[in-house]
Amino acid sequence: MPKSHNQLDKHSQPSLDELRHSAAHLLAASVLALWPEAKNAIGPAVENGFYQDFDLGEVKLTEEDFPKIEAKMRALLTTWDTFAIQEVPVVQAIKDFAWNPYKSELINEFATTGKTITETKQGDFLDLCKGGHSAEPNKYLQYFKLLSLAGAYWRGDEKNKMLTRIYGTAWATQEELDAYLHQLEEARKRDHRKLGIELDLFTFSDLVGPGLPLFTPRGTIVRDLLDGFVWELRRAKGYQKVEIPHITKKDLYERSGHWEKFKDDLFRIQTRDKHEFAMKPMNCPHHTQIYGRKPHSYRELPVRYANTTMVYRDEQSGELGGLSRVRAITQDDAHVFCRYSHIKKEVSAIWDIVDTFYRTFQFELRVRLSFHDPKTPEKYLGDEEVWQKAEAELRQIAGERGVVAEEAPGEAAFYGPKLDFMAKDAIGREHQVATIQLDMNQPERFDLTCINEQGESERIVMVHAAIMGSIERFMSVLIEHVAGAFPTWLAPVQVLVIPISDKVVEYADQVTHQLLEVGVRADLAPSDVTLGKNIRAGQIQKIPYLLIVGEREAEAQSVSIRSMTAGDQGVVPTAEFLARITKEIASRQAA
Amino acid sequence: MPKSHNQLDKHSQPSLDELRHSAAHLLAASVLALWPEAKNAIGPAVENGFYQDFDLGEVKLTEEDFPKIEAKMRALLTTWDTFAIQEVPVVQAIKDFAWNPYKSELINEFATTGKTITETKQGDFLDLCKGGHSAEPNKYLQYFKLLSLAGAYWRGDEKNKMLTRIYGTAWATQEELDAYLHQLEEARKRDHRKLGIELDLFTFSDLVGPGLPLFTPRGTIVRDLLDGFVWELRRAKGYQKVEIPHITKKDLYERSGHWEKFKDDLFRIQTRDKHEFAMKPMNCPHHTQIYGRKPHSYRELPVRYANTTMVYRDEQSGELGGLSRVRAITQDDAHVFCRYSHIKKEVSAIWDIVDTFYRTFQFELRVRLSFHDPKTPEKYLGDEEVWQKAEAELRQIAGERGVVAEEAPGEAAFYGPKLDFMAKDAIGREHQVATIQLDMNQPERFDLTCINEQGESERIVMVHAAIMGSIERFMSVLIEHVAGAFPTWLAPVQVLVIPISDKVVEYADQVTHQLLEVGVRADLAPSDVTLGKNIRAGQIQKIPYLLIVGEREAEAQSVSIRSMTAGDQGVVPTAEFLARITKEIASRQAA
Repeated sequence: MPKSHNQLDKHSQPSLDELRHSAAHLLAASVLALWPEAKNAIGPAVENGFYQDFDLGEVKLTEEDFPKIEAKMRALLTTWDTFAIQEVPVVQAIKDFAWNPYKSELINEFATTGKTITETKQGDFLDLCKGGHSAEPNKYLQYFKLLSLAGAYWRGDEKNKMLTRIYGTAWATQEELDAYLHQLEEARKRDHRKLGIELDLFTFSDLVGPGLPLFTPRGTIVRDLLDGFVWELRRAKGYQKVEIPHITKKDLYERSGHWEKFKDDLFRIQTRDKHEFAMKPMNCPHHTQIYGRKPHSYRELPVRYANTTMVYRDEQSGELGGLSRVRAITQDDAHVFCRYSHIKKEVSAIWDIVDTFYRTFQFELRVRLSFHDPKTPEKYLGDEEVWQKAEAELRQIAGERGVVAEEAPGEAAFYGPKLDFMAKDAIGREHQVATIQLDMNQPERFDLTCINEQGESERIVMVHAAIMGSIERFMSVLIEHVAGAFPTWLAPVQVLVIPISDKVVEYADQVTHQLLEVGVRADLAPSDVTLGKNIRAGQIQKIPYLLIVGEREAEAQSVSIRSMTAGDQGVVPTAEFLARITKEIASRQAA
Repeated sequence: MPKSHNQLDKHSQPSLDELRHSAAHLLAASVLALWPEAKNAIGPAVENGFYQDFDLGEVKLTEEDFPKIEAKMRALLTTWDTFAIQEVPVVQAIKDFAWNPYKSELINEFATTGKTITETKQGDFLDLCKGGHSAEPNKYLQYFKLLSLAGAYWRGDEKNKMLTRIYGTAWATQEELDAYLHQLEEARKRDHRKLGIELDLFTFSDLVGPGLPLFTPRGTIVRDLLDGFVWELRRAKGYQKVEIPHITKKDLYERSGHWEKFKDDLFRIQTRDKHEFAMKPMNCPHHTQIYGRKPHSYRELPVRYANTTMVYRDEQSGELGGLSRVRAITQDDAHVFCRYSHIKKEVSAIWDIVDTFYRTFQFELRVRLSFHDPKTPEKYLGDEEVWQKAEAELRQIAGERGVVAEEAPGEAAFYGPKLDFMAKDAIGREHQVATIQLDMNQPERFDLTCINEQGESERIVMVHAAIMGSIERFMSVLIEHVAGAFPTWLAPVQVLVIPISDKVVEYADQVTHQLLEVGVRADLAPSDVTLGKNIRAGQIQKIPYLLIVGEREAEAQSVSIRSMTAGDQGVVPTAEFLARITKEIASRQAA
């Protein structure tokens, strides 16, 4: 997202939210002016823009109508010089919006709950509105654009009528608008759903269902390499792998407290014995049962369990899209069972892993210290003193690393403070990725202890740590970040060997096998296809290296290198290329 | 199971089943003689023995009652010189067994279904019986023993009354009985449920539920190494990994035909959108959806997908035990999508993998060719000619390998013939393990094709192949086969370094790190524990090598080796031990 300019004067310079909220009203007024039978429903500001929902009756809009609507918006705007709202009695509001069943429904609800009803009027256009607009819209609301159309159920409920949603964006300056539109265009080109098919990484099946990606051989290579990288970093810090079934009796989540909290998001199962089971939406309760299988001496701590495994969330079908949001989520999960005195070292070790992992992909990281709010102690489990101490340690760790971390009081989990990591991608978008969470709650609920130096049972603490979080979501972020061009170590096919004629097929095959023997994922291109076509196929698949071999190369035991990132690299002895690429792979060099 | 002697003469020498069935009657007669209020239910011959169910009213039997019952059996036996059965009218049978509600229920059922009712009488003891006994029981029924007690619901239905089941065994000779009792005793010592806890490989939690094992770090090492071994063998044969979610819409199984066949064994899920989902009980339908994502040229075939993943079966709680039968089963599954012309080579390649894998653990393999029955063509999908050809190929592959394989007509799956592998373990028990199945059905149902040389769509065939089958079940078999003493490459802890005093802790630590650096899983024993205690701890954990180091060893940079299998191996330079063990591990040498 392009940076917004500073807000100089609250009265004269509206916030982006105010601008966008005003734009939504303007859009409603314009559509109603153009199609008088239309009925506007809600229209809020959202991240990077706004939308407005309409019941258009028989009218079918397309994006080709956008210029006409935008022209009407600009025309109406000339007269929008203020944006006042006015409180009105319920009966008045009911009368004013009798023609609009959506507004009527809202008014009745507001009336029932005793909310104040406010209206706004611009020219002929009267709307129901809670305020929060740009003053002088005709001055400030200049840099907007309509973007797309979608269907949306009234109030998000699929039992209700499907309305037409128009999305738009609005910014304070032309530069910001241009930058955002450019980012959108870049994002469209990098869309992982499109690239996922072009690169043959994953597929969906109507028979299997939405939100349930199936990973092809190429996609599985990427998954496994990413997971292997995280494991390599974790192993070096003393983690051990464990494995668990994906289901459990309900009892486990009743004990952990997750049943109460997540029961609507769980996939629930009735067994033939009439027991209630669930598919796991997280792994920590299962891991506590492994830790709790036997007593642990303080000498054995910290105990660190790592487990890459799927969790399941019953997301609504409408919310699913590509790998960004799925129903079967592969988590690279880990839990550290330790004493309070271990926290600093353990969190630091995880932070090292997060740093190394994201640096490898050249993501820029931002850290948030999500702390408790001392003003609402009832929302959190445990002593104020323990919280203070734990948060002070997190703050100190950040300080010692020279990281300026935003502190967010009130953002902690109820069971403990956390560190949230945000990664900025190549086109400037931020994605929440890794998280490190202290947990003082589950050790209580599951009575997890160690035997301390005095031979007494001592309550321990848990640290939750996911590096990628969800492999699926991380893959979606990474594919878009690198625009499908994975670094060599991660590319499903690393080298395509292209013989320029039948005469050198044998040599090309020999080069391919030399590569395979040292563990490089190499393919041999068919020789009955033109060189140009083979090169294009390699480029579409975004293969890091195309090795073109003709008679000259065969004679000299060499290859002509075309690198995806650096272009033509000339002819080098095959042995030299082998040494170069194996080094590049071993060091996980960026593309 | 000890081999049975040949059946010399059907009339004079009863079969084992006849002997055991007779023993069950004898047991019933004896218990009723001792406890006249007892009511006998059913009592069949089973594998290796027999059982008899009783409703004992208020009487509680223990194994301490067995000598008394056995004595009564031997006493009654003296008068059992024939074993005739006699057809009786229904009214007669009803009258004879009016005192016994279980027999009465059976008689009424037989009468309804028009079955002939037969009785047998020995002395005062009248029983309902369908025949199949030993002639002259007093001559042949000599070598029997009562073994154990269990609860069992009448007709296996938990809604019915819980009866008392007495298990026994019976053999034709004393040697066979002794051999079997010895095998039982050995099996008890090797019980993987007991060893699993001693070696800390897995655990169960009441909160998670029965049949859902949780794998500890040590158990996970074993799982991963086994799976890695299979993958290494498969990769060399051109397999590629894929990954799939563990759930699916019901639609997938309706298409595959599994819904009809397995719907009662499936864990079924109702989503919040009110769609019916299921946890996968097998992986093939998911894999067809990956294959089917795009057209395949015949040049790309065979396509070979490997996927180690959990499947779920809603087994009844009563049937679950340790790792032998679980509800979340990790399959090392693979599917080959190929043309009919590929079958021989592909099956052969899988057979190679099976051979290598089981030979590594010194299992003896037996192969069964499970073929269709040409007399009941309606039970199978596809042309008789295709079946003949496919089976001829399997037979030929077996022949070329010099394997004498039993042919079992009627044992094929409805979708194709298969090869079933049985492994004989160290104490002579056979376990069904790997399977290779041809499948002509799913390619039809999912319309799987390739584009052939003529540019036409050609139906393909699938080969299903699991090497371990279920990792859990294979682990249970392997743990008992090796009595918990894994070969070095598979042992969770391969070396325990034991310092004999505080003075050599530093050296012991150095040796441990030298081992860790070359990838050996080594632990350092505590120095504040006696040498004897450390050695015993290592032996209980069945660690392949204990390295004992004192001052002499520290000075000479050497270690004193105590091997789990070979005992004291003397003192060798540490470097030599490192070379020896890394070689042993790399070659997956047997223990």
